[in-house]
Amino acid sequence: MPFRNEDDLVRWLQRRWPDRATNVRLGIGDDAAIVSVTRGSEFALTTDLSIEGVHFRRDLHPPRAVGHRALARALSDLAAVGARPRFALVSLAFPPATRRSWVSGFYDGAGVLARRHGVALIGGDTAVAEGGGIVVDVVAAGEVKRGLALRRDGARPGDLLYVTGRLGMAALGLEMLKSNARRASTTNRRAEGGGIVRQALGAHLYPEPRLGTGRYLAAHRLASAAIDVSDGFARDLGRLCAASACAAIVREESLPLPRSGTLLTSSTGRPRQQTVREARLDPLELALRGGEDYELIFTVPRPRAGRLPRSIKGVALHQIGEIRRGRGLRLLLRSGSEVRLAPRGYDHFRRAR
Amino acid sequence: MPFRNEDDLVRWLQRRWPDRATNVRLGIGDDAAIVSVTRGSEFALTTDLSIEGVHFRRDLHPPRAVGHRALARALSDLAAVGARPRFALVSLAFPPATRRSWVSGFYDGAGVLARRHGVALIGGDTAVAEGGGIVVDVVAAGEVKRGLALRRDGARPGDLLYVTGRLGMAALGLEMLKSNARRASTTNRRAEGGGIVRQALGAHLYPEPRLGTGRYLAAHRLASAAIDVSDGFARDLGRLCAASACAAIVREESLPLPRSGTLLTSSTGRPRQQTVREARLDPLELALRGGEDYELIFTVPRPRAGRLPRSIKGVALHQIGEIRRGRGLRLLLRSGSEVRLAPRGYDHFRRAR
Repeated sequence: MPFRNEDDLVRWLQRRWPDRATNVRLGIGDDAAIVSVTRGSEFALTTDLSIEGVHFRRDLHPPRAVGHRALARALSDLAAVGARPRFALVSLAFPPATRRSWVSGFYDGAGVLARRHGVALIGGDTAVAEGGGIVVDVVAAGEVKRGLALRRDGARPGDLLYVTGRLGMAALGLEMLKSNARRASTTNRRAEGGGIVRQALGAHLYPEPRLGTGRYLAAHRLASAAIDVSDGFARDLGRLCAASACAAIVREESLPLPRSGTLLTSSTGRPRQQTVREARLDPLELALRGGEDYELIFTVPRPRAGRLPRSIKGVALHQIGEIRRGRGLRLLLRSGSEVRLAPRGYDHFRRAR
Repeated sequence: MPFRNEDDLVRWLQRRWPDRATNVRLGIGDDAAIVSVTRGSEFALTTDLSIEGVHFRRDLHPPRAVGHRALARALSDLAAVGARPRFALVSLAFPPATRRSWVSGFYDGAGVLARRHGVALIGGDTAVAEGGGIVVDVVAAGEVKRGLALRRDGARPGDLLYVTGRLGMAALGLEMLKSNARRASTTNRRAEGGGIVRQALGAHLYPEPRLGTGRYLAAHRLASAAIDVSDGFARDLGRLCAASACAAIVREESLPLPRSGTLLTSSTGRPRQQTVREARLDPLELALRGGEDYELIFTVPRPRAGRLPRSIKGVALHQIGEIRRGRGLRLLLRSGSEVRLAPRGYDHFRRAR
């Protein structure tokens, strides 16, 4: 039993997360949080579940990463509509045997990310549930100027298609974690490799929602549609196209794939270096299907494309294809042939991870 | 597998819950919902988990009741701050074997209650989780005029103490359900008793959050503090007093206890009638400790008490005691003696139900 009771946990959170945000009238510990909205703004609201065995595993993900990723999922939704995140409510249900250090690490992970983005943690719910795993729900509320919110359904044939950052890195990071976990009994589990190893683990464990990019696109009225990559690039692009009632073509050569650098799989007492390809991972497959990248896919009408910078706040923008009439996704391979791209990716409905 | 995939469920929900609310700019199916707030209002935000085995049992609670109760929990939080509910986001995680009829019954239960209170269901999250039970999270957002929100920490010594409706009815309803479930194999499970049976089952399965009462108290600046009864009267009164740094005395004779009428426990093929007392249930204990009443506890400064009606929109208001200096709760028994009232009730941290 990590805390004496629910009130004990609430008091701990109140000390941990004092309300300093100007728009919070009533924060943690009351029946509801009361917040005010800036004049001329609208509220963006999103809620995301993070479930042990589906979205994280306690043997792979440290508690700080679970807290960070749960909040990042919700903040990424706000990035996709171009909102400035203001408030979050974090709910946690855990089995009675959960250690206090786990609970405190979890809230710390969420707290550090929240502080970095000026998000006030203003409430949540807690429960101790016997016989189940850990369940997290994060609610995030952000502000966006009236009428400027990005949405999925605004793409039109001829619009150019973009993606931020790099795809497939989070999936690569997960593969590294899983391959280490399988060999846990006989291995040195320290992640010693640099470069791509660190980047991939970081992308998976501590993803950075593209909030600055989303707000820039919304504020400058550059994007006609946007969505974040949570369930895999192909799947989320498919959703954007379905909502916009159009098709898309993607050029393989333009996709920002994971670099085929070295990958750490320590199968003996000492770390062993393998390339992505040696580990039988296909960088293209990772980029197209691997989920949880939390990059943004967005479309820009051609007349506005000239106003788009090459990067926004250090995040590269890649022009990777365009929107077409019709339905479905196509992939233009490096070979020059064009193939159908199934809008599949990681689906919580298909299998637990 | 009740739905083909997450997108299939989202499309079903979009048809079921079309956005008709005027302040919804972007509803179900995008990354976040976008809503606007009436001028001069603030937003009340709350989130509540409902977990199988903790907050409900699939053998006791029909899916409609699970949906209704999950939303009612969140709406009751809005009632306690005096907000008018506007929007809700409903998230659901369920095991792969869950029937489509369960999922659809669940959403219908939430939908009916939402419609009755003018709440637009604007989003949520879904996941299929193997190896766990059903998990629900409901986010509710309401509006309250700037500065009028009720809070827990405003009670002052001398204020009069009130409670709405009737206490202990939901706990009584749960006892009936459990006693029927134990005898399920040999019994006729139809609830045939009238009166208190119907009322208690209704109070437990389909509680009515006191939204009208909360809004009236806020709009007329009548209450100095308020809280809803979710974890039991004594526990929630203890929370109000702790937040307000004061004590309270409650008169047993004024408490609206469950009537000691008949209680249905069908232990043979035919329903058998028992009184509450024959079933070894103590009405006072049910009222003080039984949770999930979703009544409101509130305090009123004496000078304003004359303006308080005897009932608000058909819900009776009972003056049951007063706020005192100091700490802790006292109970004035019918016998005239005064005893300590432990601020305990149902605590999710103590044991799963």
